[in-house]
Amino acid sequence: PAVDTVGDLDAFRELMRSSAATMYTNVERVALSALSDWYECTDTGAFRHRSGRFFTIEGVSVDVPSMPIPRWDQPIIRQPEIGILGLLVKEFDGVLHCLVQLKAEPGNCNGIQVSPTVQATRSNYTRVHGGTETPYLDYFRDRARHRVLVDVRQSEQGSWFLSKRNRNMVVEVSGDVEVHDGFGWLTLAQVHDLLGQDDVVNMDTRSVLACLPFGEPAPDERSRHSTGELLGWLTETRASVDISVRRKPIRELNGWHYDGNIVTHEDSRHFDVIGVVVQAHGREVGTWDQPMIAARGTGLTAFLRTTIDGVPHVLVHAKVEPGIFDVAEIAPTVQCAPETYIHLPRQTWPPFLAELLTADASRIRLDVTQSEEGGRFLRTRSRNLIVDVDEPVEHPDYRWVTVSQLAELLRHSHYVNIQTRSLLACLRSLRDSPTAVESIV
Amino acid sequence: PAVDTVGDLDAFRELMRSSAATMYTNVERVALSALSDWYECTDTGAFRHRSGRFFTIEGVSVDVPSMPIPRWDQPIIRQPEIGILGLLVKEFDGVLHCLVQLKAEPGNCNGIQVSPTVQATRSNYTRVHGGTETPYLDYFRDRARHRVLVDVRQSEQGSWFLSKRNRNMVVEVSGDVEVHDGFGWLTLAQVHDLLGQDDVVNMDTRSVLACLPFGEPAPDERSRHSTGELLGWLTETRASVDISVRRKPIRELNGWHYDGNIVTHEDSRHFDVIGVVVQAHGREVGTWDQPMIAARGTGLTAFLRTTIDGVPHVLVHAKVEPGIFDVAEIAPTVQCAPETYIHLPRQTWPPFLAELLTADASRIRLDVTQSEEGGRFLRTRSRNLIVDVDEPVEHPDYRWVTVSQLAELLRHSHYVNIQTRSLLACLRSLRDSPTAVESIV
Repeated sequence: PAVDTVGDLDAFRELMRSSAATMYTNVERVALSALSDWYECTDTGAFRHRSGRFFTIEGVSVDVPSMPIPRWDQPIIRQPEIGILGLLVKEFDGVLHCLVQLKAEPGNCNGIQVSPTVQATRSNYTRVHGGTETPYLDYFRDRARHRVLVDVRQSEQGSWFLSKRNRNMVVEVSGDVEVHDGFGWLTLAQVHDLLGQDDVVNMDTRSVLACLPFGEPAPDERSRHSTGELLGWLTETRASVDISVRRKPIRELNGWHYDGNIVTHEDSRHFDVIGVVVQAHGREVGTWDQPMIAARGTGLTAFLRTTIDGVPHVLVHAKVEPGIFDVAEIAPTVQCAPETYIHLPRQTWPPFLAELLTADASRIRLDVTQSEEGGRFLRTRSRNLIVDVDEPVEHPDYRWVTVSQLAELLRHSHYVNIQTRSLLACLRSLRDSPTAVESIV
Repeated sequence: PAVDTVGDLDAFRELMRSSAATMYTNVERVALSALSDWYECTDTGAFRHRSGRFFTIEGVSVDVPSMPIPRWDQPIIRQPEIGILGLLVKEFDGVLHCLVQLKAEPGNCNGIQVSPTVQATRSNYTRVHGGTETPYLDYFRDRARHRVLVDVRQSEQGSWFLSKRNRNMVVEVSGDVEVHDGFGWLTLAQVHDLLGQDDVVNMDTRSVLACLPFGEPAPDERSRHSTGELLGWLTETRASVDISVRRKPIRELNGWHYDGNIVTHEDSRHFDVIGVVVQAHGREVGTWDQPMIAARGTGLTAFLRTTIDGVPHVLVHAKVEPGIFDVAEIAPTVQCAPETYIHLPRQTWPPFLAELLTADASRIRLDVTQSEEGGRFLRTRSRNLIVDVDEPVEHPDYRWVTVSQLAELLRHSHYVNIQTRSLLACLRSLRDSPTAVESIV
């Protein structure tokens, strides 16, 4: 049923509860070799769909001579086509609302999550899977007909996806919009409220929300570094790091094992590649099977935050990852799987991990666990953490930046990674952060 | 000899004349199969240096289903490493000067041209060729020690180079700088004067100069389109165009012929790949051989320009080329080899080519022929043309933009192509264009 009360958060929450009865997925784990729509390609040693479309799971060998770990092998999802993540927004009584969708995806740990108006891979919207047409997609197909507030390609997780990018769009409409079943209009403040809860607002929504302009930009002179300096710092990293990513059959990956059932790391670390059979009830096609990635343990995505000259700054670094489009992107203070490190000597930990894990509760401004994309990742989650510190600690490979600077960089593609975007979206749920999104209308 | 008089253009011109006696290259054309340092790789069908470094000349098959010519084969230069084009600048008596270098390159049609302070491929500066160390390179290696005004990676010709990018840098120094033989300090205005002459300022210098901030930005509201709209327009092109570039042995390229001597197009169009033996006299290593690209005919690189609401605008489009890093970049109004079209019916010509070729002399604001990079291209030149029109003619695939908007985009990598950068540099030689480069110091 559609929510007929625009901007009614209680009604929307009730819709989430009631929809759970009719919109859900049953996910059964099966051996990768037992998938019927997918096969292990003998030429490439990758898992492919029989149609040749959607995505593949491939093996890669990564060389980055300048990094602490200069060489490793891993499986990775290859999905080079550019999908659309589209959010429709509209003013009701002078307040901007966005049209969100309740969506059940097989990887979700809690069934339904809040997704953007449109979340379509190119396979989706050219209807390779034989499903119904994606609702509202036309609003995002023709830039000239509507007011486009955001239109930028952004990368997804660079350690799991090879060159995966989505076009993040926010389009403002003024006319009437039919509200289909499972969709509802919420104000941005209401979506930000939902962002304060675990596993409610999905990754794609967080990605798009982060690309919205973020109030008035702080003047450059009140930032620790000028935006030009930050761009130069990125240029230096991107120009000086040599990274090579070569394909390799999954069965030949060093440190990984595939027995016909699942692909696992020999130390039971990082993630598994598994097979699932999905039965979907609701709007989507009834049943299919697919490989998925299931991370070992919950990730950590965290900012240290401080105030410099009266302006809040967060600490970021330029992270090199094999899958991103252009060598390195701006990443949060820490982005890692803590389980990988907690048994190792502390001097091998990533910078600032210890400070974040041991921060006094009074310092923690945000602590919410969010899900990765439920179409590719099975019950894979990250703790989004923001910890305030009194002094801007310095580290040669890290930079303190303002949220306005990140917003300015988000007008462009490929500067700010998905983990940082998720944190930026969550940051907006805080009462003490600027919420001047209204200024764009 | 070094120019001991800073900012003396007459002395610099005299130095160019006198240097020609001691600094020159003899270039002898030889069959590709007769090159001793290069060979045709039997695995890939590409031309490679025996060291495995420098660059390769490969064949590619290009598919772009949405373009008027949806598929073609061609040879292309592959040089994935990122070199440095660095310009050192310094204030003398309150006026910004830049340290330029006289450089003889084998492809130059006139011997010596003015190049940036540093023009180094990674092979150069790691000294693969066994030559002497690149002077002044240290100023560009450590961002922290100097004031960095420009630091951005920009692409080279996307129809001749596969993913070739250089790091364009401008670094300001305050201390004493030793002036080596063949180098001299010129004011920006003097370099702009030289840009008004044919074949004097080389392509790398034009590329770097175009990345300098260009006066005060015009307020966005006086531009025909907001910068956000322009970014969205580029996103749309880049997200919607499917381009595939697959490698193919040069001997198997459709429409091309290799007889052991040169690689030519069957209609004698586009360009040839040739072999040369180079004897260099001057600072560089004595003798070597290499393949080069020799274009058929002189290219055309042109802006239509008009004034909208008192602000000058130029007409650009988003050009898809196989070699650029990210599908499409902003290109001038026209960028083509006119010889390809002049014998064809006019309706097959690129938009605006006819207007530009037949413009009344009174409309022509700039008409200067510039050389392509002399290390890869033999006597390959483009006519740089700017033609004023009274009214902003409209075309759905083109946009009128201000020079300030292009300067703003040039703070970022991969938005503005090399042909546009060359025109922007030449535009600064015009008396009626803003020259507020001084505002950056």
